[in-house]
Amino acid sequence: MNSVIESILTRRSVRLFSGAPVRQEDLELVLRAGMAAPTGMNLQPWAFILVTDRRRMDALREELPYAKMLDKAGAAIVVCGDGSAHHWVEDCSAAAENLLLAAHALGYGAVWTAAYPYEDRIAAVRKECGIPDAYLPLCVIPVGVPNDVAGAAKDKYKPGNIHRNVW
Amino acid sequence: MNSVIESILTRRSVRLFSGAPVRQEDLELVLRAGMAAPTGMNLQPWAFILVTDRRRMDALREELPYAKMLDKAGAAIVVCGDGSAHHWVEDCSAAAENLLLAAHALGYGAVWTAAYPYEDRIAAVRKECGIPDAYLPLCVIPVGVPNDVAGAAKDKYKPGNIHRNVW
Repeated sequence: MNSVIESILTRRSVRLFSGAPVRQEDLELVLRAGMAAPTGMNLQPWAFILVTDRRRMDALREELPYAKMLDKAGAAIVVCGDGSAHHWVEDCSAAAENLLLAAHALGYGAVWTAAYPYEDRIAAVRKECGIPDAYLPLCVIPVGVPNDVAGAAKDKYKPGNIHRNVW
Repeated sequence: MNSVIESILTRRSVRLFSGAPVRQEDLELVLRAGMAAPTGMNLQPWAFILVTDRRRMDALREELPYAKMLDKAGAAIVVCGDGSAHHWVEDCSAAAENLLLAAHALGYGAVWTAAYPYEDRIAAVRKECGIPDAYLPLCVIPVGVPNDVAGAAKDKYKPGNIHRNVW
């Protein structure tokens, strides 16, 4: 099978990390992949906060109910969108998917933990990371070396989700 | 460079097609890649309409201001979301990015043309494709054999978009 398709199909949400570090040059590549996503009218209405400071990762962990795996992650990437751009959620979601795929392709694990649209989580991430009012955090993506049994990705293919020419 | 990262970085929006067909088995793989995206609470709140009928593609082309390239596309994929799922836009956007990446990986071109959040386009696509009220079309993705000069993808990497630990 085509290696890119195979990588897309084997990506999964990794929520257990070993605590080993993530190489800085890999994080840069992951961020580069994020910025390669398409955006409405090419506005690129995004910003990325790369968190590798242990105290700040712990602070995010305290605040976010579904980001407890940050304790063993090597980094966290906060994907932020410019709220004035009509398509910021779509654009930043495409970027987030690229980040997840790139982390997987480089042998790391990662998982999308939502901030948006939850007001309390948005406020918490905004405070911890100093995000200006014009931007909203879409999600916090812990990245790390996987420590779980290397299970297969879920097969979510459902023929019933495909309609031919008309619903 | 890692082949998956390279494919992510070289994907671009293709708006000129040759008119050559897209293989059915490739379209199935592209759809499989779409359904491999992560979704909030694993709800998979999506459906995909695979349009290969020329008359229906022409009808969509008539209705949609930014989908004129459908005349030479081999197929169109309409990504639809279940509006009752809180994260449907994020989830379907991640799926759409997977579709675009998979099409590129298989040698095709594709482009995200937005339906959501434009009420007129949503209504038009709903009518042409018989989408039930509970679902919304996020985008229409023409897929085809590229016919443009094989230009390089835009380099959208901007170091200024990356903040370290704090904005």
